[in-house]
Amino acid sequence: MDNNYYAVIMAGGGGTRLWPLSRADRPKQMLNLGSDRSLFQIACDRLAGLFSPDRILVVTVTEQAAELQKQVPGIPAENYLLEPMPRGTASVVGLAATVLQKRDPQAIMVVLTADHFIQNVPYFQKLLRIAAEVSRKNMLVTLGITPTHPATAYGYIQRGVILENIEGQAVYSVQRFKEKPTAAAAQKMLADEDHDWNSGMFIWQVSDILVEFEHLMPELDSTLREIGQAWDTPEQSKVVAALWPTIKAQTIDYGIMERAQRVAVLPAAGLGWNDVGSWDSLFEVLPLDSSGNIQLNDPNVIIDTHNTLILSDGTHRLVAAIGVDDLVIIDTEDVLLVCRRSDSQKVKEAVQQLKDTGQTRYL
Amino acid sequence: MDNNYYAVIMAGGGGTRLWPLSRADRPKQMLNLGSDRSLFQIACDRLAGLFSPDRILVVTVTEQAAELQKQVPGIPAENYLLEPMPRGTASVVGLAATVLQKRDPQAIMVVLTADHFIQNVPYFQKLLRIAAEVSRKNMLVTLGITPTHPATAYGYIQRGVILENIEGQAVYSVQRFKEKPTAAAAQKMLADEDHDWNSGMFIWQVSDILVEFEHLMPELDSTLREIGQAWDTPEQSKVVAALWPTIKAQTIDYGIMERAQRVAVLPAAGLGWNDVGSWDSLFEVLPLDSSGNIQLNDPNVIIDTHNTLILSDGTHRLVAAIGVDDLVIIDTEDVLLVCRRSDSQKVKEAVQQLKDTGQTRYL
Repeated sequence: MDNNYYAVIMAGGGGTRLWPLSRADRPKQMLNLGSDRSLFQIACDRLAGLFSPDRILVVTVTEQAAELQKQVPGIPAENYLLEPMPRGTASVVGLAATVLQKRDPQAIMVVLTADHFIQNVPYFQKLLRIAAEVSRKNMLVTLGITPTHPATAYGYIQRGVILENIEGQAVYSVQRFKEKPTAAAAQKMLADEDHDWNSGMFIWQVSDILVEFEHLMPELDSTLREIGQAWDTPEQSKVVAALWPTIKAQTIDYGIMERAQRVAVLPAAGLGWNDVGSWDSLFEVLPLDSSGNIQLNDPNVIIDTHNTLILSDGTHRLVAAIGVDDLVIIDTEDVLLVCRRSDSQKVKEAVQQLKDTGQTRYL
Repeated sequence: MDNNYYAVIMAGGGGTRLWPLSRADRPKQMLNLGSDRSLFQIACDRLAGLFSPDRILVVTVTEQAAELQKQVPGIPAENYLLEPMPRGTASVVGLAATVLQKRDPQAIMVVLTADHFIQNVPYFQKLLRIAAEVSRKNMLVTLGITPTHPATAYGYIQRGVILENIEGQAVYSVQRFKEKPTAAAAQKMLADEDHDWNSGMFIWQVSDILVEFEHLMPELDSTLREIGQAWDTPEQSKVVAALWPTIKAQTIDYGIMERAQRVAVLPAAGLGWNDVGSWDSLFEVLPLDSSGNIQLNDPNVIIDTHNTLILSDGTHRLVAAIGVDDLVIIDTEDVLLVCRRSDSQKVKEAVQQLKDTGQTRYL
């Protein structure tokens, strides 16, 4: 791949939807889920062959930087961009684009997430290659995921006209970005077959996205310019510390994508993408045994139990499950979660209760 | 109460039906279930006022003696009768009767269990008083529990004719003892209203029960006589060690009660008796919260959860239950059990699997 192409991994998220395995000091991207590599390590692994480590940037928050660097030591230290505190994906993308432009004005960047599953890596790499090709025509490119069910947990992208076809991959203009829908709206979009899930992965020339920031988010743009001036100089940390807290938190979707011109989408079917947004979603990405169970613990005793996830994290306790169906059992050192699969989304209510009652040591 | 009346508590049971809380080194009678007193301590507590501690005997196995003595230090050491190994309830009852006869030939004894719940203690004490009165007429008396549902986990006693009525308590002759029934048979017995559950509690004059041993279990009787001769002499432990292993394990029900003459039953309704034979049975004896849950843990987070038992034993872990119904969650140091209530009886299958696979450290 050409030397102007850079991968930017957004790895600053907290995330409580996989609580109690994910914790304040161990966010989702640092978890091992049925693997001896963390989601962040796997996100880096799947770039192999396409991006040399010096062309991978990681944007994260200060508290996570040391652990991430330890997990993937091959990426140069100066490629870890630290936010003093989270200020939304617009600031993450803007900071990466600003730094890249300073280092390489011809840069093309792909924005990736650190905490998603992607099972079909060859197809993933093919999509990134094609998207870069499309981006050279001054397009902002996004990867869409062809829906397999009427999900209400994702944003959607409505396709416009077909623009071209590259190596069998269709490229469409984007008609509209849509927020997470109601169940009825999701059902209709699935039936209409003209929408894709918004994966949150974007590809563009750095110069193009910075033009969008200038037009659509002028306040953030001006802050980023100041930061850009100081970047890689002795003033960097002082300027970042002064300006970052003034940034208003905003998503790139709302801030740019929903209003930008010249946006293209590459609909991907069979990518095996999953945002692992709840315990239930693991049933889509991890291998099931003949009873539909996922057993990420040892030792255990399983009797008349089906479609149940059992995960022990370093407790080495015996887990015995008898006569249970459709449960999630997460066994950690100081917290035990037993949750109905279909209620996985309510984990955040438990987290909220703990916050409200000051039991933060469990978070 | 008169000074010839003695309580004999059978406290040698192992029992795996409350696994993983009950363990090889902590049998059911040593458990605290929703109380700061163990079942054994409570079994002693409920005798207060009726039996002074020196008229309480405890029959147990060697391994449990020290812990039981520690739990109830008021009972004299010589009243702890030790079986070198379990040999069934016939040998337990026979040993206690033999020792009592040697110490007090006029003794009346009540045989009690150490690991059952009895909620109505005043009624319990009244029954024991009346039963002793009946036993003076050379009757073998048993306490029957008026069935509240067609249980298949208990033996049954079919009532014969009414013999008398003492202080409002009916006394019946016993027509027949019956083993644990099928569901259909249990249903019929419940409808016929002429059967009681066999509680395993018996009251008789020691001289009367020893006559039955002589007639119905002559082999055991002869062994018990030899042991009786040596009891409270320097030869005691040597003789017990030599003879006890030769005893064939037998229950008092099968060995004596099913074949004895002059058997009476006191049917008890409203005694609040429960043998705590499974996790599910705790829902009959412990207080439920407004969602039908029993929470014997702290701290916890409970969301949309009903009819579920949560018990943590010394782990001090947070237990979060979300969207679950009719479960039993038992959280111990080295084992976690998650079991459907209606499958509580399958806990013994889990125990068997662990035995079969040599994982005895969890038993």
